[in-house]
Amino acid sequence: MALSGNPVLASWRDGAAKVAILDFVARVTDAGHADYVPPADRIAVFDNDGTLWAEQPLPVQAFFVLDRIRALAPQHPEWRDEQPFKAVLDGDTAGIMALGMDGLVALVMATHAGMTTEAFADLVGDWIATARHARFDRPYTDLVYQPMLDVLALLRANDFKSFIISGGGVEFMRSFSEAAYGIPAEQVIGSSIVTNYIVEDGTPMLVRAAELHHYNDKEGKPVAINRHIGRRPIAAFGNSDGDFAMLEWVTSGPGARLGVLVHHDDAAREYAYDRDAGLARLVRGLDEGPARGWTIASIAKDWARVFPF
Amino acid sequence: MALSGNPVLASWRDGAAKVAILDFVARVTDAGHADYVPPADRIAVFDNDGTLWAEQPLPVQAFFVLDRIRALAPQHPEWRDEQPFKAVLDGDTAGIMALGMDGLVALVMATHAGMTTEAFADLVGDWIATARHARFDRPYTDLVYQPMLDVLALLRANDFKSFIISGGGVEFMRSFSEAAYGIPAEQVIGSSIVTNYIVEDGTPMLVRAAELHHYNDKEGKPVAINRHIGRRPIAAFGNSDGDFAMLEWVTSGPGARLGVLVHHDDAAREYAYDRDAGLARLVRGLDEGPARGWTIASIAKDWARVFPF
Repeated sequence: MALSGNPVLASWRDGAAKVAILDFVARVTDAGHADYVPPADRIAVFDNDGTLWAEQPLPVQAFFVLDRIRALAPQHPEWRDEQPFKAVLDGDTAGIMALGMDGLVALVMATHAGMTTEAFADLVGDWIATARHARFDRPYTDLVYQPMLDVLALLRANDFKSFIISGGGVEFMRSFSEAAYGIPAEQVIGSSIVTNYIVEDGTPMLVRAAELHHYNDKEGKPVAINRHIGRRPIAAFGNSDGDFAMLEWVTSGPGARLGVLVHHDDAAREYAYDRDAGLARLVRGLDEGPARGWTIASIAKDWARVFPF
Repeated sequence: MALSGNPVLASWRDGAAKVAILDFVARVTDAGHADYVPPADRIAVFDNDGTLWAEQPLPVQAFFVLDRIRALAPQHPEWRDEQPFKAVLDGDTAGIMALGMDGLVALVMATHAGMTTEAFADLVGDWIATARHARFDRPYTDLVYQPMLDVLALLRANDFKSFIISGGGVEFMRSFSEAAYGIPAEQVIGSSIVTNYIVEDGTPMLVRAAELHHYNDKEGKPVAINRHIGRRPIAAFGNSDGDFAMLEWVTSGPGARLGVLVHHDDAAREYAYDRDAGLARLVRGLDEGPARGWTIASIAKDWARVFPF
């Protein structure tokens, strides 16, 4: 095996998961191999929350939402008695979790819309530079997974183009994707809200409206992959049943395919959650993944280190 | 000026348009110049119909639609008496043009939906390989503009990433964008219809539904640029008022900007049309473009040759 990139998957322990990834990359990049794939078709897709960085106790974007609600509350006295805002301002975590999808969408719209794309990017940029994860007391962008950075580096060194395909907001992720992962804005695909082009006093702007455009989870992932990329990737990495359709779509194509699910089973170094994890639950993936040829990467067993720090 | 790519804009005659393009590229790639732009931000966007290839007497995709209606007619006897299909089957060109947007959408849905993305790609691939332009008696993919291929080559040699931003169907264009322009599928943004992810007998597929998802014209262009690319391009090329908002958005950004409108004024070698050209009309661009610093590229005066043949 003559793979570029040195050291190769240095943060992975020797084992079946590491071998599966290295073997796949070796086969599709070996011009003499039956599984060879030309560089233009070497497309890999990655979920973000729980796959590239930590998503517990809540996805990072949820903390941004909560901080924004608190910051905006003085301008919205009615929020003190109005759900879903009341639960946020009361610090009622169980109440927030009980709000369901409609409550979450209302919180997102109250904090993500009614401003230009540039103003929103500034808000996110300022927040991500200063907010800290409570347990690890570090900026959220420190909580990227070193083994996945290794995978991204290995793929980059072997002429893959890697895309993020996440349920998170596309303009939220783009504020840090290049710095955190080396993935440029145009290779980030996420959920999006309606955006309108408006010219005011001769100045054009894009204004974010309080209306969902695309929710990029479950079946929405292969749909968005087709819409944005226009061909079927050959490798997919996820960690929850929200990624099931994406892995299914990618690994059902002809030729060599790689599907990897990160299994969060390490409460000591990160978090342990799977079948009962709400929106982040992993049930079908664990039950059906192995028979579909997918690799289950155990954080406890397969990752020599979790974070870069 | 030390530009890569040799010969540089060989199909352009010396003149203001050629100078404007070469000068812009020289400035943004010169690390010592105040207008320098790092490679990652060198994004250029191109309309397709009438900007990269011929769009007269009808956009190429319209001919695909008409051919498909005729091919499907035996399975649809009701079309003989039903508009918009009757006008197509009667060869009533004036009638087709009078159908307006609703009629065109009905024709598109009847020919573009109700099949998998792969089946559609096969249909388009077969058609584009065999269909011929009536006047020039050549495959449509021969009717790309050599001067614009020169521009794409110049930008590629100078580390730009070029995207197509067209009102045409994204999956239609992707069937030839790589071969015709060297632009990969993931850098093609167009109009799209709703696509659904379906698993049938264990086989996943993406099925095209008869419902518009995004119409990528006028204000829809900057919106789609933001959604797909996530940053403001620094150069934009178009040819009609459908491209006005895109050029406006691109050239309103800070720093060096390039806006170019191709002016179809050469009936002898191609076509002559502008203010009265229906969907392809160019009015505001001609009236306001020069004061906005946009370059009007005259096919008659600025292009030494039009097509590669």
